[in-house]
Parts: sequence; structure tokens; C-alpha cells
Amino acid sequence: MNKEAIHRQIRAKQSYLCVGLDTDPRRVPSHLRGAADPVFEFNRRIVDATADYCVAYKPNLAFYEAQGARGWESLQKTLACIPESHFTIADAKRGDIGNTSALYARAFFDPASSGLNFDAVTVAPYLGRDSVMPFLDFPGKWVILLALTSNPGSADFQTLAVSAGPPQPHPEEGLRLPLFEQVIRTAQSWTGEADSSDRLMFVVGATQANQLGRIRQLAPDHFLLVPGVGAQGGSLEEVSRHGMNRQCGLLVNASRSILYASDGEDFARKAGQEAQSIQREMTKWLSTYG
Amino acid sequence: MNKEAIHRQIRAKQSYLCVGLDTDPRRVPSHLRGAADPVFEFNRRIVDATADYCVAYKPNLAFYEAQGARGWESLQKTLACIPESHFTIADAKRGDIGNTSALYARAFFDPASSGLNFDAVTVAPYLGRDSVMPFLDFPGKWVILLALTSNPGSADFQTLAVSAGPPQPHPEEGLRLPLFEQVIRTAQSWTGEADSSDRLMFVVGATQANQLGRIRQLAPDHFLLVPGVGAQGGSLEEVSRHGMNRQCGLLVNASRSILYASDGEDFARKAGQEAQSIQREMTKWLSTYG
Repeated sequence: MNKEAIHRQIRAKQSYLCVGLDTDPRRVPSHLRGAADPVFEFNRRIVDATADYCVAYKPNLAFYEAQGARGWESLQKTLACIPESHFTIADAKRGDIGNTSALYARAFFDPASSGLNFDAVTVAPYLGRDSVMPFLDFPGKWVILLALTSNPGSADFQTLAVSAGPPQPHPEEGLRLPLFEQVIRTAQSWTGEADSSDRLMFVVGATQANQLGRIRQLAPDHFLLVPGVGAQGGSLEEVSRHGMNRQCGLLVNASRSILYASDGEDFARKAGQEAQSIQREMTKWLSTYG
Repeated sequence: MNKEAIHRQIRAKQSYLCVGLDTDPRRVPSHLRGAADPVFEFNRRIVDATADYCVAYKPNLAFYEAQGARGWESLQKTLACIPESHFTIADAKRGDIGNTSALYARAFFDPASSGLNFDAVTVAPYLGRDSVMPFLDFPGKWVILLALTSNPGSADFQTLAVSAGPPQPHPEEGLRLPLFEQVIRTAQSWTGEADSSDRLMFVVGATQANQLGRIRQLAPDHFLLVPGVGAQGGSLEEVSRHGMNRQCGLLVNASRSILYASDGEDFARKAGQEAQSIQREMTKWLSTYG
């Protein structure tokens, strides 16, 4: 799915909501636990109830891998039940040397190999260019690169000042860029295209809204995938105010607040209501800040 | 398996070889391809043929995930056939916010959940402390943190000069540490133990042997996991000369040169010979540099 198609969905639905399918088998309501695949049955109902209010789904790989091979089967069935109209993100935070990243790319993008056919994968930047390019070798697929994350540990390395490129005549001038800004600047040159925003997005945590204005200057046309609204405490209004560009340019993820809106038999209906409530707020911010 | 037990194995076998199980189904010899699980049949024979010459096995998760759920089953069976005496590493390069890393920890360390029970997992440092600690919450398990990798992209961010901690009275003095050194320094404080080398190792690529001396100063007692010997061009002697400490402190990985020493029916015998050849060289470097 290309950038324009995502923006078309956003305009049509007045929503830039991504539903995070971080499905914990221990939190699947009891009436589904006797099913052959409780995680899939849960996800299927969540997707049915929320599809009208969101434009993307983002399964978090950890929740499936914690169940081993069975989890990968649940993931494959879940992906198959997501409508074609929705952008799909493997939230996997992978990244390895080139020949290994090429195998991860097959895991998420090559259904003949793995059974999975996501539109995008999240990638960690630490290993640099050749860890990212194998994902972009798959035509039409997206890399969503970690830039500034929502967790406390983001301050350990992501915000350290780094040297910004080649040695400067006045060294101190070249040493004031936070690492995450350097990641955003450097990665834009990797795709070899004048506008990398057709294949590359960045992850910016919603708890980092004060940085979103600066990030928009560095990447005015890129989609930003923003987790951390809801359970992690980020504000949707602040994210929208500082992060939106003229086309929207945001995918804001909510997981726990939707998936676990109720732990009873009405869980899907409550999830749909929560997604609709977020979508209505998004409609407001699209007209205010978009 | 604790640090002393690994060193005991190294002394007994006169080997610090880790065999990387980067098994590509397309490279499994043709006579095994009719098996129900060719990857497992290949791995089982490789383990049988190499176990006497190595102290660790390191399956690379990408190669299994590229096969989807089937790959996870091959991985689970492979892990079950590795002798108890050998240290097992899930080369997964994971790392996510705390509650997600906790699920990845269950994927690799909790057999009741995933079927897998590795001794260690490789983790990327970009998300900082709370992305790493959930793995260490599993008693006796190890984190092997990426520091300086063997690939060209390691120069994109890992070697950039960063600010080394809190603001300095003379800023320029605080801005000269490469990022990978900052990772090694910072991570040692995370475990809360006086000596973090009982639970934490670092990945340093064999192609970076010129940096190993400096890394040994920063982490004198830690195990270093060193991939990149063989197909990637790193020198075992250089790695041993600059990286070994008095107990050894190295796990040097070889994958392709062993797995694919032959593509015929004699593949396991040739793999054993290649592993033995590396082990013999290691015996020499243990007496020279250990």
C-alpha cells in the first residue's frame, strides 16, 4: 500500500488510528479460552469491531512468539482476516547484518516462505544501512525505523548528543545533534530516492510530543508511527498538534485501551466503542491541525 | 549455565567455538530434503558432528522465522537435541519497551510458554535499560548486548562520537566516546550487581579486531561473543590476540564455513572436520594469549 493510498483511507475514515494487536492469551476473555485458537478468535472479533474506525493494524510479534510455533499460526490467521483496505505493520523491531535481515524480510514480506505478507515492519537502527535495505528490496514494502521511543530507556542512548556527520572545522558545532535526529537524517539518504517518504516511516513515542515539532522539521513528509497514547500516557491532542503535516502524516497506535476495554463477553463491542471514540477525537484534530 | 561453567567447558575442550545454526533450507543437501523436517534433520547431524569441538550453539532466529510456524517447530526440536553441556544462544537481536521485552523473554527463556529454553539472547541496545532488564528477570539467563557489529553499517551510528554522560564543565571533553563504548559502559550499571559479567556479554564483530583491545579495557571480565570469523573475513588470531582475557572470555562464532563445508551426503563429517580444525587453532591461541 503506498503513501497516497494510506492518506486516502485516512481522509475517508477521518481516522489515523492504528490498532495494536498486542494480544496476551492470559487476557483473552474466559468464554473464548476453549476455542482451538483463542488468540485468533479474539483478534478476529477485535478486527471486525474496529475496522471501520482505524486505518492500520499492528500485531506485536513478541506476544505471538511467546507462544512459540502456535503463536506464529495465530499471527498468520490474524493477518489473513485483516481487510485489504488496512495497512498492516509487523511490530518486530528487527535488524541484523545484511544476509540475516534478508531472511527477516522473507519472514514478514514473503508469504510463499513464511505465510506472512505484511505491508511494513518496524526496524531498529543500531546496525545501520545494510541492516535496513534488505527490507526495502521487497517492492512496495515499508520500513518503519525506530527513532525516539516512548519508554524511559529512550534517554539512555537515543537522546545523547552525537557528532553530526563528517568532521567539522569547528568540532563543537558538529556535536550537538541527539542520536535520534541523526538516525532520522541519515536514514533518509538510504533509499536512494529523492523522497524517501514513500517507503520509510519513523517511530516516535507519544510521550515525546515535545520533540515532534523538531522531528517534523527533519522529516516533513514522512509518516510517523506514534505508539504510547493510552496506557503509556501520551496525549492524542499534543501528538496531533505537533506531529501532523498537511496530509496528516501520522499513524497513532492504541493497543491495551482498545483490546481490554472489557474482559467480558462484550469485549469486542467495547473495543469498537473505544476505537470509535478515538476516531471521533481524531476527526476533530484533523480539522484543527491537518 | 554460569560464567564459571562456560569457562570449565572451554578449558576441558580447549575450544571457545560457538557454532552458528544459520540453517538455510535452500542449502540443506538434497538427500535430506524429503524428510518431514529437513532443517531439523540437518541441524541434528551438524550438532552430533560438532559437539566435541564447540562449547556453544547459536541458532539465528531469522532463518527459522523465514519459514513461519514450521521454522519455530524446527527451532524447538533443534534446541532439544543440543547437549546440556553446551551454552545456547538465541541470536534474535530483540529489544522493545519493557512489557514487550518481557514477552520476548518468555519466547526464549520460558519453555512452558514457547517451548524454548535458551541460556542467552542477543539484544539490541537502542531502547535502553528497560528494554534489557526483563530478560535478566529470568534467573540464570544471559543478555548478550550488541556493541560493535561486523557489518559495514556499524559505521553509521555505532562509531559516532557521543556525549559520555551528564553535561561536562568543558563540553568538548565529554563528547569523544564512540556510541558502542558508551553502550558497554552504561549497560554494566544496569544489572545492579558489582560485577555484571555474570549475566551480561557483548557482541563485537570479528572484523573489528582493532577495537578489541579498547573494549577489553572497558569490560575486562565480560564474555565477548564474536561473530564474523570465516565468511565475513575476520581473523581468529587477531580476535584472540586482542580479545582474550586470562580466563579466555571469548565465544567466537562460525556459521557458514561449518554448516556448508560440503553440500553432499558427507556434509556432517566435513562440518565436524571444519569445527575440529578451528578448535585446534583455538588450542594454540589459548596457550599463546590466554
